[in-house]
Amino acid sequence: MKQLENLMDYRQSIRVVDATLRDGGLVNDFRFTDEFARELYKTNIKSGVDYMEVGYKADKEMFDESEFGLYKFCDDDKIFELFGEKSDKIKLAVMADVGRCNYKEDIHEASNSPFSLIRVATYVHQMPGAIDMIEDAKNKGYEVTCNLMAISTAQENDIKVALDMLGRSSVDVIYIVDSYGALYPEQMSRVAELYREYADKYGKKLGVHTHNNQQLAFANTIEAVGDGVDYLDGTYAGMGRGAGNCTMENLLGFLRNPKYDIYPALKFIENYMVPLKESGVKWGYDWQYMMTGILNQHPRTAIAFTNEDRKDYTNFWKEISMQD
Amino acid sequence: MKQLENLMDYRQSIRVVDATLRDGGLVNDFRFTDEFARELYKTNIKSGVDYMEVGYKADKEMFDESEFGLYKFCDDDKIFELFGEKSDKIKLAVMADVGRCNYKEDIHEASNSPFSLIRVATYVHQMPGAIDMIEDAKNKGYEVTCNLMAISTAQENDIKVALDMLGRSSVDVIYIVDSYGALYPEQMSRVAELYREYADKYGKKLGVHTHNNQQLAFANTIEAVGDGVDYLDGTYAGMGRGAGNCTMENLLGFLRNPKYDIYPALKFIENYMVPLKESGVKWGYDWQYMMTGILNQHPRTAIAFTNEDRKDYTNFWKEISMQD
Repeated sequence: MKQLENLMDYRQSIRVVDATLRDGGLVNDFRFTDEFARELYKTNIKSGVDYMEVGYKADKEMFDESEFGLYKFCDDDKIFELFGEKSDKIKLAVMADVGRCNYKEDIHEASNSPFSLIRVATYVHQMPGAIDMIEDAKNKGYEVTCNLMAISTAQENDIKVALDMLGRSSVDVIYIVDSYGALYPEQMSRVAELYREYADKYGKKLGVHTHNNQQLAFANTIEAVGDGVDYLDGTYAGMGRGAGNCTMENLLGFLRNPKYDIYPALKFIENYMVPLKESGVKWGYDWQYMMTGILNQHPRTAIAFTNEDRKDYTNFWKEISMQD
Repeated sequence: MKQLENLMDYRQSIRVVDATLRDGGLVNDFRFTDEFARELYKTNIKSGVDYMEVGYKADKEMFDESEFGLYKFCDDDKIFELFGEKSDKIKLAVMADVGRCNYKEDIHEASNSPFSLIRVATYVHQMPGAIDMIEDAKNKGYEVTCNLMAISTAQENDIKVALDMLGRSSVDVIYIVDSYGALYPEQMSRVAELYREYADKYGKKLGVHTHNNQQLAFANTIEAVGDGVDYLDGTYAGMGRGAGNCTMENLLGFLRNPKYDIYPALKFIENYMVPLKESGVKWGYDWQYMMTGILNQHPRTAIAFTNEDRKDYTNFWKEISMQD
């Protein structure tokens, strides 16, 4: 059982990461208005959020710029234009997917860039590519985290090898990522214990990124806090792919460090997230996502079900549970 | 850390209790159609649900029958008419509130009633009344549970006295009830540990009833499962007062006993719960409920906010967090 002290006091080492523009961008093709992004930035500062992830560094050879908002590519000059010079009040982060980022060219020296943190996202089988990106980013002067995705369908031995490779790399933070929203808190605790072995051995920190398929994104995040995980991803109103993420507002309500303030978050939700949802952008817990979560499957079938406005949940269950 | 075996195997002693008509009835004045109730009954049997709570035994001197559907009063003859004679496939339960039930007259001998289980609901300060109701029900031949409500605002010493009184009573199951949706899983675990002391000492079982104010109803329920709590309340689509309850469908998806089947639950949701919600009945997680949960307050202000269709979340936060 976790210590009661942990509930009343707080750990100085905790960091809150807002991923609204990045994971949320997956449900509106990254088409946020400048006003939305700037108000989000101000809100994060007022709420005490430590890092703001503004999107992806996607390869323009692979993705057509006309099909996405600017947060898909996060050109340094555009980010400077939006948020100004680097601030000591919040650090900006950007995600780089293994195999989908021309990192050698598109990620510049940290000293010339608006970003402080590069978040490398990888599947277990792409680890050598991830390591190369981590070292590239570290050499350019960034803090570096690595999101090891879809671990609920990976073999534990493969995860151990990946953790050992990360341990020996220059990465600062290793993220536990429940891509499919499939983990129960007991499993999260077990995963955190495994990651902690490697983090302790190699002097790394841990982070957590959850999805809300089974209404457990917030629960799994605070479970991980109790297990010593320090970097916590949240998004306002849980905006993110499929069932969405851990809600920033619940997280800010939970954390006891007085630097975190829920009120600016509520204001942003009232003024920007509610209208965004009312405009028709779709995300959040729904039964189709619960089903892919229970079955530990990629949410793509549930996303298609959502986009087709289907309501035949039982047919969907049969489709996804009886695949041969 | 909980045992891995507990996640793959299952405990024979677990019982699932459907509270849709009872807690759900609080948001539509118990006005369910006969078809809805009968299909719910059939669904529960098909899904392997062990108990179905059909409503309250409310005192007709205190409540006007014309203002509520029949599930507010649960007259034995009407329940027989709806569901037929007692079945060995599922047991019916009814709730009796201390101070709001004329139990000596309205609760009849179990052998003549459609009910197998009386659920006594009490606040800590009403314990002598609860004990009298428990003994009355036990003498009439019922299984008896007791819901100790609103414990998140009660003094731990008072809870201990109440648990000792319950231990010495004829009650079969003592329920942990998070009326305000204020508990975090770590706190649930701590509460369960306290309750377990008394349950073990007196040979009682434990149950759990949660609310979803902080998106933790399901998480707190499965936390309690890991802590040895056996009686688990759920409602379809989480229908219940305010932010609602632990969703039956998530619970059925989690439990590993093959007697539990999620498919009939999905069918009921598709055919009855989705239309019910579309008809305008309101329940479920929303920011006003998150706020009362975070502040450990009764949800009545949030329910009023909901009924008034207010969206000024920041004003609401100021109203409830700055009360003198």
